[in-house]
Amino acid sequence: MFQAQDPNFESRVRESFARQQLMQTLGATLTLVEPGVVEIELPYRSELTQQHGFLHAGVIASVLDSACGYAAFSLMPADAEVLSVEFKINLLAPARGDRLLARAEVKRAGRTATVCTADAYTLEGAQRKAVATMLGTMMSVRGRSDIAR
Amino acid sequence: MFQAQDPNFESRVRESFARQQLMQTLGATLTLVEPGVVEIELPYRSELTQQHGFLHAGVIASVLDSACGYAAFSLMPADAEVLSVEFKINLLAPARGDRLLARAEVKRAGRTATVCTADAYTLEGAQRKAVATMLGTMMSVRGRSDIAR
Amino acid sequence: MFQAQDPNFESRVRESFARQQLMQTLGATLTLVEPGVVEIELPYRSELTQQHGFLHAGVIASVLDSACGYAAFSLMPADAEVLSVEFKINLLAPARGDRLLARAEVKRAGRTATVCTADAYTLEGAQRKAVATMLGTMMSVRGRSDIAR
Amino acid sequence: MFQAQDPNFESRVRESFARQQLMQTLGATLTLVEPGVVEIELPYRSELTQQHGFLHAGVIASVLDSACGYAAFSLMPADAEVLSVEFKINLLAPARGDRLLARAEVKRAGRTATVCTADAYTLEGAQRKAVATMLGTMMSVRGRSDIAR
Repeated sequence: MFQAQDPNFESRVRESFARQQLMQTLGATLTLVEPGVVEIELPYRSELTQQHGFLHAGVIASVLDSACGYAAFSLMPADAEVLSVEFKINLLAPARGDRLLARAEVKRAGRTATVCTADAYTLEGAQRKAVATMLGTMMSVRGRSDIAR
Repeated sequence: MFQAQDPNFESRVRESFARQQLMQTLGATLTLVEPGVVEIELPYRSELTQQHGFLHAGVIASVLDSACGYAAFSLMPADAEVLSVEFKINLLAPARGDRLLARAEVKRAGRTATVCTADAYTLEGAQRKAVATMLGTMMSVRGRSDIAR
Repeated sequence: MFQAQDPNFESRVRESFARQQLMQTLGATLTLVEPGVVEIELPYRSELTQQHGFLHAGVIASVLDSACGYAAFSLMPADAEVLSVEFKINLLAPARGDRLLARAEVKRAGRTATVCTADAYTLEGAQRKAVATMLGTMMSVRGRSDIAR
Repeated sequence: MFQAQDPNFESRVRESFARQQLMQTLGATLTLVEPGVVEIELPYRSELTQQHGFLHAGVIASVLDSACGYAAFSLMPADAEVLSVEFKINLLAPARGDRLLARAEVKRAGRTATVCTADAYTLEGAQRKAVATMLGTMMSVRGRSDIAR
């Protein structure tokens, strides 16, 4: 559906993801990178839970946000950087299971702002359950000086 | 402004927060608990960053969400549990500094749904900079069976 | 995909929509009612515009919100009423054209809260352009006394 | 708190508001314009209601969105135009009363994106009740060609 501007989009996404130290801290891995679509998986760990033993909403938001950011980034020119502007998440069900799958897709890619949707599922054996959904805005910036403004 | 229904609200909030393993994993501590108001602080650590070395939006969302949840929880009856229904976050500036301060306040406490706003600031010496703002809905549930619905 | 609990869901939706005086004021009509899916159309009129002659974001939000509310309502029991709890809208492109089409779908139907997504398109001859997307929460209430609390 | 860049900000806001035909259709008036702060009032009319006789959420969103847009616009340079990027609204209570008051304030004014918060109240005699709250992003664009992008 979408066409990447930069033929090296996948390696660019993978390199940037590898620099997100939080993803390593959480134990998340990038499992799919296509133009405008990114999937991230996260094994369940008790270190990431809220008070009832489910994955904390902030963990789910972290993974969905990174998935949205890289789905947007995959369509950006080679010299662009990506930043989250805002997102909204709805929690649909408690998140427990072997692992969490987050899948983000670009809804509209603009010159500076890109709108993404993303869904999170828990996977338990052959079972897949929707646990959260996100709608957010990612921004393309050129160069590091723009980021810190 | 708000009156707690449960005189033991503070210990109830502190005990529940202590069970949120994610907060320990992130290194966050509860620094203020008043009826309808909660503050959480988080020292900056590179393990929590995104690709440019700033705190990941998901980390900020995690701390703001917990602050909102416990601000709502502080006003709930003694036998209630709290769950996040949804939240929206706007990132205002890159988050770097000695530590992050998240402050949540209840906007409207309903029988089942409580609406909260929260702000995140980075603190660096005497400098305080607003880096994010949240608007979200927290839900009161009775008993563990309701949670896993 | 969804099964209606109330076999008379369509007439129940149509009767309630007919009582939404705002929909008449805007000139909106209900064009599709299926279990968990509702479409509303609105002809472009200059009375509904913002300062540049495009449909005002609030008009688009009004139609998307009603579509979400009735998509949720179509799955509720016969004695339920529906209220909007919250929604978020992203504007994707300026809205001009012959008419606006809003399509809402239920994402998760819960006992009290139902999460919906909705998209708005402008239609101009054979052209269809996405102009906005919504993610929101609708609530089921029983009886009028619950509504006014 | 905020300083307007354009000394003629108030007349610029008032002229743009006068071109929003929807505001006239709804019967809304601009009651306060200060740097970064705007208030709009709307008398209750049954033509603007949902199925239970309360103001439709979309009407409240329309007025809050215009208030946010003009609060942002008041701080922009003289040659800028304003567009809504996205907003989220939480409905706090059914909206009935003599009139609705929407008050928006800029939270952070950026070069292109401005984040605003806004609250809506119903006024009935001396009574004031909070009925909704909004968090949204407004964008500054230069010239009409940018708008129709």
